[in-house]
Amino acid sequence: MNAKVLREGRVRLWLEPEDRGLAYGDGVFETLRVCGGVPAMWREHWARLCIGATRLGIALPEEALVRCEAESLVADRALAALKIILTRGVGLRGYAAPEVENPTVVLTCSDVPALPEPGLVLRWCKTRMAVQPLLAGIKHLNRLEQVLARAEWNDPGIHDGILCDREDRVVCTTSANLFARIEGRWLTPTVANCGVAGTIRGWLLAQGAAVEAELSQAQVSHAEVLFACNALRGILPVRRLGQHDWPAHPEVLALRRRLADAHPAYAFQE
Amino acid sequence: MNAKVLREGRVRLWLEPEDRGLAYGDGVFETLRVCGGVPAMWREHWARLCIGATRLGIALPEEALVRCEAESLVADRALAALKIILTRGVGLRGYAAPEVENPTVVLTCSDVPALPEPGLVLRWCKTRMAVQPLLAGIKHLNRLEQVLARAEWNDPGIHDGILCDREDRVVCTTSANLFARIEGRWLTPTVANCGVAGTIRGWLLAQGAAVEAELSQAQVSHAEVLFACNALRGILPVRRLGQHDWPAHPEVLALRRRLADAHPAYAFQE
Repeated sequence: MNAKVLREGRVRLWLEPEDRGLAYGDGVFETLRVCGGVPAMWREHWARLCIGATRLGIALPEEALVRCEAESLVADRALAALKIILTRGVGLRGYAAPEVENPTVVLTCSDVPALPEPGLVLRWCKTRMAVQPLLAGIKHLNRLEQVLARAEWNDPGIHDGILCDREDRVVCTTSANLFARIEGRWLTPTVANCGVAGTIRGWLLAQGAAVEAELSQAQVSHAEVLFACNALRGILPVRRLGQHDWPAHPEVLALRRRLADAHPAYAFQE
Repeated sequence: MNAKVLREGRVRLWLEPEDRGLAYGDGVFETLRVCGGVPAMWREHWARLCIGATRLGIALPEEALVRCEAESLVADRALAALKIILTRGVGLRGYAAPEVENPTVVLTCSDVPALPEPGLVLRWCKTRMAVQPLLAGIKHLNRLEQVLARAEWNDPGIHDGILCDREDRVVCTTSANLFARIEGRWLTPTVANCGVAGTIRGWLLAQGAAVEAELSQAQVSHAEVLFACNALRGILPVRRLGQHDWPAHPEVLALRRRLADAHPAYAFQE
């Protein structure tokens, strides 16, 4: 892994121990797919970072500076994951924000795991997500629920787990949004109560390819077909969920092609 | 502020940007009152840190090492706040814990704000706490709810705000546990759904001075008397909550004396 920290106009290799990102998870992050040395869908990721920062009242860093430093970090990477963390910066003890905020930006570059062929094997997580509309939708740094959910299994044959909220509504997987085809329509859970409004999810909704809906575990288990999606790996067909198996589905392939046409970073070998 | 970071047997002044404490809030913390260069109630704080780390599955550092480094950090401080952060350490990208965990310990020392006399002025926060029994009770690093609640006011005449959960039960203030005297008994909210099991709260319950109960906003507003408590400042009388005022109460004074007798770090000027 390769990292740098931007603070007060300087580039460093380390973080101050008094950063509020550590103390409280007081910040937001983005994970971008890097293809041919270029971060994909920058505009969409920056827009979501801004929405999250605004929701938390965190001052925004200069986009051009962050982009320039991010691009130089990943310039020689054919395929990689770029993570951008924005925090409220260093603070005194206590929850009150400092009077003058100097946000911290942490950039890290790491490998992208291979896409499992012919698709993901998923499980149901026991961990239930709390309902918190104040934090729903944004990609904030309070991720203990995902950590606990991911700790439920260590079988490498299971690629991800699906989470429900405490009212038994399906929300997402630990690291991706979920789409289910039911009665001929693609549905995906809302992110009004919990979950993250993913960038690929946003693209699919904007394309009219899917609509938001409330989904139960039974509906997802008996869906005609499922896929997960996230910025790092695009659209990921689901092969198995618990005891349910799905063969490859032409509609998922069609959506993957459509995404690759719009954003060539998501091109794939057929 | 004064800080050090313990990792892999070494003492540093900075944190690695890939620490999971930053990435996910994947850790727990303690805030201790330091009096005469000595952290008060070490045993109680260490015990709670262990409970939290165990709940999250984080490996425990060696107590003697942490205590030694903490004591050397605060040795020359007559009165201070010692914060101990324990994280799962550095990880690769992704929620799965690293195969070999090397926890990070961050120690910081800062000033203790003066106790407002003759007592706290509180408000009700609009921010509602999510119900999440998996994280309730422990002092984990996912504190955005407290940050949002504390951002609701900037009037320095308001010392703290009381939070309710999404089902309208009173939980705590942003930085303390809350006790209400109702029909002659001291009651404090349970921490089974959200909130932190504070060390002073634990001491009071163990003394038989109070019992856990479900409390509504109306009950708290119309209580005979209120106090807040946390490890940093002990028992804090409440003077006002919204439009309700309370005079000094002999029972709060008696409890403060009892705490000071048991733990002299909480001695106060009468």
